[in-house]
Amino acid sequence: MGAAEAAALIPAGATVGMSGFTGSGHPKAVPQALAARIEAEHAAGRPFKVNVWTGASTSPELDGALAKVGGIAQRLPFQSDPLCRQRINAGEIDYVDIHLSHVAQQAWFGFLGPLDVAVVEVLGILPDGRLIPSASVGNNKTWLDIAQHVILEVNTLPPRELEGMHDIYYGTAIPPRRKPIHLEHATERIGEPYLRVDPAKVIAVVPTHHADRHTAFAKPDADSRAIAGHIIDFLAHEVQKGRLPKNMLPLQSGVGNVANAVLAGLLDGPFEELLGFSEVLQDGMLELIRTGKMRAASATAISLSPEAMREFTERIDFYRERIVLRSQQISNHPELVRRLGVIAMNAMIEADIYGNVNSTHLMGSAMMNGIGGSGDFARNGYLSFFVTPSTAKGGSISCIVPMVSHVDHTEHDTQIIVTEQGLADLRGLSPRQRAQVVIDRCAHPDWRPLLQDYFDRARRSGGAQHTPHLLGEALTWHQRWLDTGSMRP
Amino acid sequence: MGAAEAAALIPAGATVGMSGFTGSGHPKAVPQALAARIEAEHAAGRPFKVNVWTGASTSPELDGALAKVGGIAQRLPFQSDPLCRQRINAGEIDYVDIHLSHVAQQAWFGFLGPLDVAVVEVLGILPDGRLIPSASVGNNKTWLDIAQHVILEVNTLPPRELEGMHDIYYGTAIPPRRKPIHLEHATERIGEPYLRVDPAKVIAVVPTHHADRHTAFAKPDADSRAIAGHIIDFLAHEVQKGRLPKNMLPLQSGVGNVANAVLAGLLDGPFEELLGFSEVLQDGMLELIRTGKMRAASATAISLSPEAMREFTERIDFYRERIVLRSQQISNHPELVRRLGVIAMNAMIEADIYGNVNSTHLMGSAMMNGIGGSGDFARNGYLSFFVTPSTAKGGSISCIVPMVSHVDHTEHDTQIIVTEQGLADLRGLSPRQRAQVVIDRCAHPDWRPLLQDYFDRARRSGGAQHTPHLLGEALTWHQRWLDTGSMRP
Ligand SMILES: CC(C)(COP(=O)(O)OP(=O)(O)OC[C@H]1O[C@@H](n2cnc3c(N)ncnc32)[C@H](O)[C@@H]1OP(=O)(O)O)[C@@H](O)C(=O)NCCC(=O)NCCS
Ligand SMILES: CC(C)(COP(=O)(O)OP(=O)(O)OC[C@H]1O[C@@H](n2cnc3c(N)ncnc32)[C@H](O)[C@@H]1OP(=O)(O)O)[C@@H](O)C(=O)NCCC(=O)NCCS
Repeated sequence: MGAAEAAALIPAGATVGMSGFTGSGHPKAVPQALAARIEAEHAAGRPFKVNVWTGASTSPELDGALAKVGGIAQRLPFQSDPLCRQRINAGEIDYVDIHLSHVAQQAWFGFLGPLDVAVVEVLGILPDGRLIPSASVGNNKTWLDIAQHVILEVNTLPPRELEGMHDIYYGTAIPPRRKPIHLEHATERIGEPYLRVDPAKVIAVVPTHHADRHTAFAKPDADSRAIAGHIIDFLAHEVQKGRLPKNMLPLQSGVGNVANAVLAGLLDGPFEELLGFSEVLQDGMLELIRTGKMRAASATAISLSPEAMREFTERIDFYRERIVLRSQQISNHPELVRRLGVIAMNAMIEADIYGNVNSTHLMGSAMMNGIGGSGDFARNGYLSFFVTPSTAKGGSISCIVPMVSHVDHTEHDTQIIVTEQGLADLRGLSPRQRAQVVIDRCAHPDWRPLLQDYFDRARRSGGAQHTPHLLGEALTWHQRWLDTGSMRP
Repeated sequence: MGAAEAAALIPAGATVGMSGFTGSGHPKAVPQALAARIEAEHAAGRPFKVNVWTGASTSPELDGALAKVGGIAQRLPFQSDPLCRQRINAGEIDYVDIHLSHVAQQAWFGFLGPLDVAVVEVLGILPDGRLIPSASVGNNKTWLDIAQHVILEVNTLPPRELEGMHDIYYGTAIPPRRKPIHLEHATERIGEPYLRVDPAKVIAVVPTHHADRHTAFAKPDADSRAIAGHIIDFLAHEVQKGRLPKNMLPLQSGVGNVANAVLAGLLDGPFEELLGFSEVLQDGMLELIRTGKMRAASATAISLSPEAMREFTERIDFYRERIVLRSQQISNHPELVRRLGVIAMNAMIEADIYGNVNSTHLMGSAMMNGIGGSGDFARNGYLSFFVTPSTAKGGSISCIVPMVSHVDHTEHDTQIIVTEQGLADLRGLSPRQRAQVVIDRCAHPDWRPLLQDYFDRARRSGGAQHTPHLLGEALTWHQRWLDTGSMRP
């Protein structure tokens, strides 16, 4: 069936569960055809929007196309498309920002309402009807299970040799019938290589031949290399103190350039036989596997630059033995992240002196991307790092502030904060102790005196001294940036 | 050995792991003797402080006595003693506020430093050296395992028939050697009734005969009854919609009067065959068990009023078959709370219109008690309620505010907010949608127009519209209360 015909089967107001995670495995044709249809309906004066659920971020062909025509009413759980972000921040899309490990279960519980249509990319359909998953698994199992109707896109471009790399777990259930998940090693297989679907629900099969979004990574800059250096020194120190095994524990690394650079840093680090237990496998982790530094990795998506994709495709038999792709409720499962003792490394927008972390909002109101899986890993991991350059926007913003303008990870969930300036180990510290360490180690020298001044005055203010604050002043840095383009007084 | 002799074995600067959870099972004699010793040392001009780790809150005999003499340097993880709180807020105690499910593992990992002495109350010592736990388990297993030296208080007052009620799990491990925890039903037993200790580490055994802190609960007032009513109506509605089984899922209920009142409300509710999976078993839950409304309950501590304690003691054989007491890392374990699908009900200090919740800080700086287990249950539960009266301090404070002055539970972790005014179901809503529901349903009529005005102006401000805020104004309600004694403009 053609994409336009398939898109015609999606009614206005429908909730659509699409495949796609971090630019890979999203449907490439139906969303664009749906966007064209929406545009035509709008031109004819007829309202037409859909709710779009995915695994995580997608690409211009999905979020971009649908946002462009004003076709999205509700969006969840993670996005990073510039047009989609713009619509969210204009108040035109209701964006619901859910921990990635919570999405599938909330859909199953019925908390998010019914799912009308699933649009899922696969690489092929076996004679018995089972599906070969694509380069990401995301929430596909759940969408296929709970959607009333299913549209499949069969993409013949990605390497068919991905077959066998997936591990789809069919043991989940709704309480009170849940069982332990018997996964004890990061790259153990506990499921099946194929997705199942009830053939009676399949209303369209659309052939495509189209590449994933292969975004190039920025070459690690000096700041990223400094951040990576601090983390590696710290990990080596923890091994030496006996608080970490010699080959460490499974690594999770978040999205973005800095996170990727930290993995690049491990290439020259002293650690061998590493394991990955992450959401997304980016260039940095592939390189660790290629060089033998990392034994194997588990993720829910592979998202590579064009170059890395070439390497991956050429030696796919090598990689298939070293990479396991799972559903995102398994890759991010609190039970597993805690059991395995994952070392979590995630980028952030800002942290405050007390260790509260903002991963999602610019200046308190504007959505950047969403929380993604950062909370799943930060809360449940063995160690948790949050990293950022100490300043942003040409130095007009300090990424260490008196009080963050939005909290995604509370002081109870953050352990180690790292900027190019240094590393603040907050484990076992009270808020006052944390503040001094964060100011001394992480703040940029241009901003350090201002932060110290805030903290000192809050301590002398006569107010309560557990978490000394000057509430009248705590958010003025952000307000000043909005007013003048600089946080500087 | 006498308590004074035992206390003399604790050196200045020691880190001491004490038993005790919510006023039960704490050592009754040694902490007071230690306080007397510290007082004498201080009088002689010699500095003397210790770090105090517990299960959770204790009593005037422990936190009160040691805080009174200025004997605590560091305190974790939860406290509620007025004198201790005062020292924390004077900046004299470094209070480290950790999720209760994280404490034992962080101690094992070595993140909190070495534990010098454990002081643990037990009810008796078996001939083979095993210990009969007291009315709370808390972190006792961990303290006994990792402390260098152990002091035991053997308390002969609590009913010896508690023997057999405990279930101490000895299957925990440090990653990478962790295994699934095979608990599939709330009150299943997976451990042993006794605590183990290496006899070589025991440096003192102190006999005591002293009751736990049995605090009377306030009779549920109109606000608490209204909150309970909203929750019960909501649960009934969820059952009717098929989103909850008829006999619900295991219930967790937080500390405090309101939480207790909600359980009282279930007495007349339409639910039968309930189960409890909670931290602390208070009067409300005992009454549910007594009347047969609740089949059985799991907790880490029993904390009853004098009256309820009498009932419990008189029919202890009945209750022993219906109550299981576990270590707090098991009672609060993310793996188990998620698997069982716990319904979490916790009190809070304030919520903001976007659903961020503050459980710990008054006006951003003053510690109240601590986060306790509220985060373990709110993040991992099937449903999560946060409850508070809509106003505090005679109406001078609105407990629904534009922005909370401290975040303990982020918008990603809160589902349902309840005040006596009504219930806001935030599942699947974007921040803007949440704000309108919270204002309409939960705010007190005196404050509703002011909140609506804030939200309306933030929407018209020209700023980003994902989470509309006026940063210059967001915390002025709190600052005004500090300045004038009322949040009112
Ligand atoms: C936090 C996050 C946005 C950082 O991504 P990144 O690529 O490393 O970040 P960058 O340094 O390039 O910053 C992104 C943008 O935010 C801006 N920014 C950074 N810090 C800022 C701050 N404190 N205040 C305002 N803007 C800031 C940057 O200037 C940049 O803006 P631009 O795109 O206009 O140049 C990203 O990691 C994320 O979305 N995290 C949340 C989800 C997550 O952690 N997932 C991990 C598991 S999936
Ligand atoms: C939040 C918590 C303090 C509420 O306890 P409670 O007994 O129901 O609360 P109360 O309504 O009696 O309020 C306690 C005090 O805070 C004050 N208060 C309440 N709301 C307030 C607000 N928004 N701003 C300032 N003060 C406030 C009350 O006036 C009262 O003060 P007082 O002692 O001087 O009279 C308590 O539940 C708690 O410590 N929670 C965190 C830990 C937790 O949730 N554990 C659950 C699993 S263990």
